[in-house]
Amino acid sequence: MSYIREDFLLTTKTANDLYYGYAKDMPIFDYHCHLPEKQILENNPFSDVFEIWLAGDHYKWRLMRNFGINEELITGNASNKEKFLTYCKVLGTAFGNPLYHWSQVELKEFFGCEKEINEQNAEAIWEECNAYIRANELTPQKLIEGSNVKHLFTTNEVFDDLTTFEKIKEKGYGFTVAPAFRADKIMNIDAEGYCGFVEKLAEQTQQINTIDDLEAALENRLNAFIKVGAKASDIAVERVCPVTTKAEAEEVLKKVLAGARPSLEETETFKGYITYFLMKLYSKYNIATEVHIGAMRNNNSAMLKKLGLDTGFDSISDTNSIGNLSRLFDKLNLENSLPKTIIFNLNPKMNTEIMTLMGCFQSDEARGKIQYGPAWWFLDNKVGMEQHLRDLTATGHIAVFVGMLTDSRSLLSYPRHHYFRRILCDYLGGMMERGEMTSDFKTVGKVVEDICFNNSVDYFNM
Amino acid sequence: MSYIREDFLLTTKTANDLYYGYAKDMPIFDYHCHLPEKQILENNPFSDVFEIWLAGDHYKWRLMRNFGINEELITGNASNKEKFLTYCKVLGTAFGNPLYHWSQVELKEFFGCEKEINEQNAEAIWEECNAYIRANELTPQKLIEGSNVKHLFTTNEVFDDLTTFEKIKEKGYGFTVAPAFRADKIMNIDAEGYCGFVEKLAEQTQQINTIDDLEAALENRLNAFIKVGAKASDIAVERVCPVTTKAEAEEVLKKVLAGARPSLEETETFKGYITYFLMKLYSKYNIATEVHIGAMRNNNSAMLKKLGLDTGFDSISDTNSIGNLSRLFDKLNLENSLPKTIIFNLNPKMNTEIMTLMGCFQSDEARGKIQYGPAWWFLDNKVGMEQHLRDLTATGHIAVFVGMLTDSRSLLSYPRHHYFRRILCDYLGGMMERGEMTSDFKTVGKVVEDICFNNSVDYFNM
Amino acid sequence: MSYIREDFLLTTKTANDLYYGYAKDMPIFDYHCHLPEKQILENNPFSDVFEIWLAGDHYKWRLMRNFGINEELITGNASNKEKFLTYCKVLGTAFGNPLYHWSQVELKEFFGCEKEINEQNAEAIWEECNAYIRANELTPQKLIEGSNVKHLFTTNEVFDDLTTFEKIKEKGYGFTVAPAFRADKIMNIDAEGYCGFVEKLAEQTQQINTIDDLEAALENRLNAFIKVGAKASDIAVERVCPVTTKAEAEEVLKKVLAGARPSLEETETFKGYITYFLMKLYSKYNIATEVHIGAMRNNNSAMLKKLGLDTGFDSISDTNSIGNLSRLFDKLNLENSLPKTIIFNLNPKMNTEIMTLMGCFQSDEARGKIQYGPAWWFLDNKVGMEQHLRDLTATGHIAVFVGMLTDSRSLLSYPRHHYFRRILCDYLGGMMERGEMTSDFKTVGKVVEDICFNNSVDYFNM
Repeated sequence: MSYIREDFLLTTKTANDLYYGYAKDMPIFDYHCHLPEKQILENNPFSDVFEIWLAGDHYKWRLMRNFGINEELITGNASNKEKFLTYCKVLGTAFGNPLYHWSQVELKEFFGCEKEINEQNAEAIWEECNAYIRANELTPQKLIEGSNVKHLFTTNEVFDDLTTFEKIKEKGYGFTVAPAFRADKIMNIDAEGYCGFVEKLAEQTQQINTIDDLEAALENRLNAFIKVGAKASDIAVERVCPVTTKAEAEEVLKKVLAGARPSLEETETFKGYITYFLMKLYSKYNIATEVHIGAMRNNNSAMLKKLGLDTGFDSISDTNSIGNLSRLFDKLNLENSLPKTIIFNLNPKMNTEIMTLMGCFQSDEARGKIQYGPAWWFLDNKVGMEQHLRDLTATGHIAVFVGMLTDSRSLLSYPRHHYFRRILCDYLGGMMERGEMTSDFKTVGKVVEDICFNNSVDYFNM
Repeated sequence: MSYIREDFLLTTKTANDLYYGYAKDMPIFDYHCHLPEKQILENNPFSDVFEIWLAGDHYKWRLMRNFGINEELITGNASNKEKFLTYCKVLGTAFGNPLYHWSQVELKEFFGCEKEINEQNAEAIWEECNAYIRANELTPQKLIEGSNVKHLFTTNEVFDDLTTFEKIKEKGYGFTVAPAFRADKIMNIDAEGYCGFVEKLAEQTQQINTIDDLEAALENRLNAFIKVGAKASDIAVERVCPVTTKAEAEEVLKKVLAGARPSLEETETFKGYITYFLMKLYSKYNIATEVHIGAMRNNNSAMLKKLGLDTGFDSISDTNSIGNLSRLFDKLNLENSLPKTIIFNLNPKMNTEIMTLMGCFQSDEARGKIQYGPAWWFLDNKVGMEQHLRDLTATGHIAVFVGMLTDSRSLLSYPRHHYFRRILCDYLGGMMERGEMTSDFKTVGKVVEDICFNNSVDYFNM
Repeated sequence: MSYIREDFLLTTKTANDLYYGYAKDMPIFDYHCHLPEKQILENNPFSDVFEIWLAGDHYKWRLMRNFGINEELITGNASNKEKFLTYCKVLGTAFGNPLYHWSQVELKEFFGCEKEINEQNAEAIWEECNAYIRANELTPQKLIEGSNVKHLFTTNEVFDDLTTFEKIKEKGYGFTVAPAFRADKIMNIDAEGYCGFVEKLAEQTQQINTIDDLEAALENRLNAFIKVGAKASDIAVERVCPVTTKAEAEEVLKKVLAGARPSLEETETFKGYITYFLMKLYSKYNIATEVHIGAMRNNNSAMLKKLGLDTGFDSISDTNSIGNLSRLFDKLNLENSLPKTIIFNLNPKMNTEIMTLMGCFQSDEARGKIQYGPAWWFLDNKVGMEQHLRDLTATGHIAVFVGMLTDSRSLLSYPRHHYFRRILCDYLGGMMERGEMTSDFKTVGKVVEDICFNNSVDYFNM
């Protein structure tokens, strides 16, 4: 039996009562993830626990590298089983790391396996989980429905084929799948292959020679996304660039479409305008924007060349753009075009400055129109979540918080919602027990339920 | 009965003993607030709980905006009662927000009302508080004396009429009221109406054409302030500018007095010199300086136009000026002209860098000559105070700390002193119970009393 | 009896079991300190408790200055006894300050004195400790061996005389002493007396006219250090400068050797290249690098002139160089020349960004090849250590952590290792008791032992 008990992370009786009375059984709305919609549509059964658990998870890879494991045993040519056994060995002493908890909880929730993960038990866990997978014919649908997920938003490029979403609808799953509109590839004008992305967009819409063409094409695609159920959009930038004019952006666009590479300054000029344009567009269609800031990506060129993007070589950026964010919000607000926005910030030292800025742009268009998103990526752990809740409640109103998401590429990540809910209930339960807030369970329980599910349903107009 | 118990925030027996034995009955010295001195002089009774509690409090307005309340019900044309009921509804689930605690404590301490604030109780609270206000003819004097306040410093412009303070003295209140000298309007050369402020200063002193004139006028006014009891001065800047020369500042001043608008660079040039000049002046007269850094103000232009300054649209700045602060302190110190200084910093991530810098400029002129002021504004809450105490004790000497202030525009804010004192006693009491410090109550109690009141009396030479 | 009990900082039974079962008796490897190797060689007995405890400790001086003590009683002409009594008075109410704990523990561990340090007991402590020192003829050797130290690295300039280390070897102490190679004086080209340092280096090696000469001379000296046992090197910079080319650095070097003073830009150009060169050199010889970033030094010019360097007038810098660090690591890594590196960062707000960057450059050359060093200097206290452990475990793998060091100029600092170990055991023990990790003592105990001693032995190839 592993160390995970019924009262895991619930340090008071009140916390337990809140969790089991209000949080545990609420459905899940995963409003930002990176699941491939095709995998959900095809719904093929999995073959072994490595494939479902370790194959694409760069969080786990990083932990193994930290421990000094050879890359052969991480992403290399070693067998699935060797890699699995190695991961179990590494995890056995990774006390305090979020993976230490998540992995143990995932084995329990998805495979009913309660063996403590470590070198000694690795072989037995390998057998037990694989037996379970075969016996139960685990598929994406089973994993998602078994996790009580009602809605999920995948993350899609503007030129992605959207018919998959229509086909998923026809499958009659117990959950809805909609794409979030992510125009980053059209914004990141300095990227290799940029013109190819614009061409792909053009193929699906119209010729693109001017900034007006580009805007029309994006609006065209946004409408196509909305037709298959899109309610949200994504923007990811290391920092928010200063807002520039359409004319300035046009100049850069034309230069690049003519074959030139943009300078750093030109890139920021273009991004500054496009960010503004996109948010204005999202406001027009009442599409919420999820802005991700603060990642410094691809630090290790050697590994980028070897393994590609999103393989565990990103880190937290120090770049601050709170002043630019203030000017961007202000301009959009003056033009009555500030959309509902969720800020995901990766650098926890910036929590309070961003949270207090958001408090300057609320309105009665929504409860918590500008949201500070949950602890995310490197912060998606006990320390990060607790700090997030402390900072959020100190500077904002917890009852309107849209709650947790997975941001994950893995179908086994839903227990992170339970992880978050336990921490939320422990936070509130602790204050109740210490006499720092009302002891009325009905009132508090309602807030818990709202944060778990209802607030996000309202926020995204489902 | 609300959740506020006798042991509110006091989680150990020792903490309770410290609070009730040493902290609770100490007088209050509110060495920085924004109360209008005229209100104190006129001493008119209040008419309803809205007027006294919600009318001018932008903290409360922000919370309502976060919840998605329409501005009509916040600062608009709705009735006092409607606004009050709405605030109670919003507050009912604002768990963890400082207002959730403050509001409940304020109702208890000032109106004897112990009903839990929420939508259900709102109407009854409205009636109960208003009945209390009428029955007791609550006035500013009664609120201040009832809070055991012995001294308070208001914040005044250099050209303010000081006769009010003489008249207050004649009233024989049980507390003293003195102005703090705030020359920001003369420093902020980029502000609209700057020349008008200089003119107002000139009217009360002398013609101002040169920087020498300006300095003489400011010194003249400082002396007038000192005559009515001033012991402190205020400076508020988003960041500390590099120190410049008098000649450089003169150039900017002449240009602006001649009608030009200063560039950003010129503004910083001027501010850098004036900050230096003012601190040197304060040192000459042994006037303590309270430097407020780290606010990014007026983020929302639309609301600035509608509601004006200080209405809840400011946030925490990221701008760092620790290097400039180091050079400013060093120059003043070299010239034996570094005044007693209290730094109020709004960005908690900068706590330790500022605290350790302060430790480089202490001297035997005062115990804790350079002070790191208490958790302030957005940090004036449980999380902020606890972090402040942890950081302060880790890098400095707690026994010389000058303690709490309200920084408030409201007469109902004194319970924040009690809030702070509870957290202080809980912090020390916890360490005593865990065997991390002496268990000698006499020694610890003396330190608690000093932080509550005595240290500030000594620091400001009262 | 003082407040220090057997369970000091150990708040659970499990924490006590871990500390007394696994941590307490592990040897100490102090892999970075500032002890003078000559003092260890000469091994003279101490004369009084002031000399051994207060004489050179700028941490203690700062605390006294914070309290408003006159410099005469700190570093001035007052007698040893007066200074000692004053320090005891100041310490008596310095609750929460690390010195409050350290000083009390040091008296207990080194002199068996358990009197609580305060004004009343000061005289008696003075007598008791001095009697103990005389009775036991305390020497450096006795203090080090009594602390169960097995290895220590001093910090040495590249031109230091290394024969002392050979002579120490002959003494047959129960511990080894090796120098760490610190080339800062050759890197800091803007320092007064720079050419003199280069000359000193040249005297021991070869003529230095070009950057090639300089590099050869440094490699020559590194080999000499290695001959006497060096396994580590030190670099201290306020921030990491961008990597530049050899040609650019050469230009600056020639200019300075010809008598010119370098501009700020030239200084950074030179430092950027030398940092890169040194790390590449250390990689070649498998010498670990300890990089210290984030100190803003010598803020107080008046005191610098009076007392010199390292006398308590440094502070935490805000300067961030995470982008430069990323580029430096990436370049070295691409060239297969990234040495084992321990980053010591003084600004805690940068913990997670640096930690996550490190996670991008791990490899199987070592377990935890790139290490985030322990809480250091201003962070070397309970708050700093707890935050360090929380951040480290959330973003990395605790089992490979190389653990604590003293960074101290004092022979009485070894109890800081015990202080750290208690906090480590309390952190792990708390998680065990709360069901957040395995309850298998053998597994956890092994990790504790590794962090206390074994990991550093492996890391430095002892």
